[in-house]
Amino acid sequence: MTRESIAEAFRKLQDHICDRLVNVDGREEFKEDIWKRKAGGGGRTRVFENGAVIEKGGVNFSEVFGEVTEAMKSNTEITAEDFFATGISVVLHPNNPHIPIIHMNVRYFELSDGKYWFGGGIDLTPHYVVKEQAVAFHHELKEVCDKYNTSFYPEFKKWADDYFYLSHRDETRGIGGIFFDHLKEDGNISKEELLDFCLDLGRTFPELYAFQVEKGKGKAFNELDLEWMNIRRSRYVEFNLVHDRGTKFGLVSGGRTESILMSMPPTAIWKYDFHPENNPKASESLNLLVKGIDWIS
Amino acid sequence: MTRESIAEAFRKLQDHICDRLVNVDGREEFKEDIWKRKAGGGGRTRVFENGAVIEKGGVNFSEVFGEVTEAMKSNTEITAEDFFATGISVVLHPNNPHIPIIHMNVRYFELSDGKYWFGGGIDLTPHYVVKEQAVAFHHELKEVCDKYNTSFYPEFKKWADDYFYLSHRDETRGIGGIFFDHLKEDGNISKEELLDFCLDLGRTFPELYAFQVEKGKGKAFNELDLEWMNIRRSRYVEFNLVHDRGTKFGLVSGGRTESILMSMPPTAIWKYDFHPENNPKASESLNLLVKGIDWIS
Repeated sequence: MTRESIAEAFRKLQDHICDRLVNVDGREEFKEDIWKRKAGGGGRTRVFENGAVIEKGGVNFSEVFGEVTEAMKSNTEITAEDFFATGISVVLHPNNPHIPIIHMNVRYFELSDGKYWFGGGIDLTPHYVVKEQAVAFHHELKEVCDKYNTSFYPEFKKWADDYFYLSHRDETRGIGGIFFDHLKEDGNISKEELLDFCLDLGRTFPELYAFQVEKGKGKAFNELDLEWMNIRRSRYVEFNLVHDRGTKFGLVSGGRTESILMSMPPTAIWKYDFHPENNPKASESLNLLVKGIDWIS
Repeated sequence: MTRESIAEAFRKLQDHICDRLVNVDGREEFKEDIWKRKAGGGGRTRVFENGAVIEKGGVNFSEVFGEVTEAMKSNTEITAEDFFATGISVVLHPNNPHIPIIHMNVRYFELSDGKYWFGGGIDLTPHYVVKEQAVAFHHELKEVCDKYNTSFYPEFKKWADDYFYLSHRDETRGIGGIFFDHLKEDGNISKEELLDFCLDLGRTFPELYAFQVEKGKGKAFNELDLEWMNIRRSRYVEFNLVHDRGTKFGLVSGGRTESILMSMPPTAIWKYDFHPENNPKASESLNLLVKGIDWIS
């Protein structure tokens, strides 16, 4: 299995996800930007804007390689001379507060000293937490994980709780999901199976979201719901710009800004010391933005 | 001059600035939150929302002290055991795109090993750059600086160009101003004079802003102007959350989140790969968001 074949598999996954999302949205078409990275490689950014469901989102593919830069060395423990990285990352912001924001990422990293690893994750950020939908989401993730290793779901679910967390607000970004990094082959799993796991997750992603969209898209919303959606969007901005390692690393290491910040919501609002006192459903949701909830049993 | 007397001078400066801003706005009153820091000290946060001119803003005073935390040690070169820090910081977001966003900060830091320093700055972020107003702003800053040391303005103006810079977009936050840090007494200037310089800057701040407000507040604006204002606001968010040292340090070291993020704009928008092609004044302004413009001669 060459790195090029992994990149090719991710590229096909991007095609598949985009096809399915066009279908899920019902009206959406996407804009495509092919870009080159000066120091090696490039990507294919696909942007969704003003769809029937997706107000703003993107499905990025990239395959970049070259010398390990100083910025990379000072932000990681990498000592090798050259790197290769390929991956897909998706963020979707819907236009209806009753549909969750969703994120998915799978990636492969390889160094010239022979080290390699897979990473990725999927997490769901409902503006309003609906328990039944949160449970369904986690069940589906567990099902994919269990096919490869029954330790994956509990381990990666906890990792997601810890990762998708706004320490400065002591709240999680949403209801979590799974997050993993530095996965290598070992006695239990081969490199091929790890790639299959990533691809399987990627193919599950649009189906997971289709369910969430179906549940929410018929629901009416008012000004209060939109206010709450815009507050949650501002928290999404805070997470991605303050805490998210991929975003920070991309921005300081000279990644393509428009592709990295495709994760930003279309709108956001900030109010000083906001509490959703006149919106009980929002308060209830806020109470569920904590680590350690067991959505499975 | 004790550290308590410096804090007291900053507290009085906060009073003065708030009084003047109420006057500049014409309608605005502010909300006050007194807060305590568990590990030592506290602050007085004053928040402006939905004024006649100021849509959202704040004037923060804080005086905090205690043990130097691990987070502080890993983010700075501090090796002392205890610290004391006091300062004022102001950010104002106006409701009219023809009035600039403005920021001011003065601060004093002292360590138990005897080291101390002053820092601070003022910078202006016009949504639309009006050259005459930018020139006036820089002239006034130079005038204050020159009273203390004629090397201050050129040095601190360059520092501001370098500091208030979004490397990931290769654009400055606005038209700059002055920025300084680690100022200590030396053969040319005493500690008392450094405090006077900070206080002088602080008192100049509302007068500088009054001029900018006066120039802009009568001007009409339309949807295109509001779109551009919201784009500039999103860049302000990006600067503060990705690049601003004070914000990042405050958030990771357990500062009071609502006081730190009082700098966030009331609203912001992100559009993929936005270029203000249908707004020539916006394009012209963007061309002036570069380092190294000499606004004085």
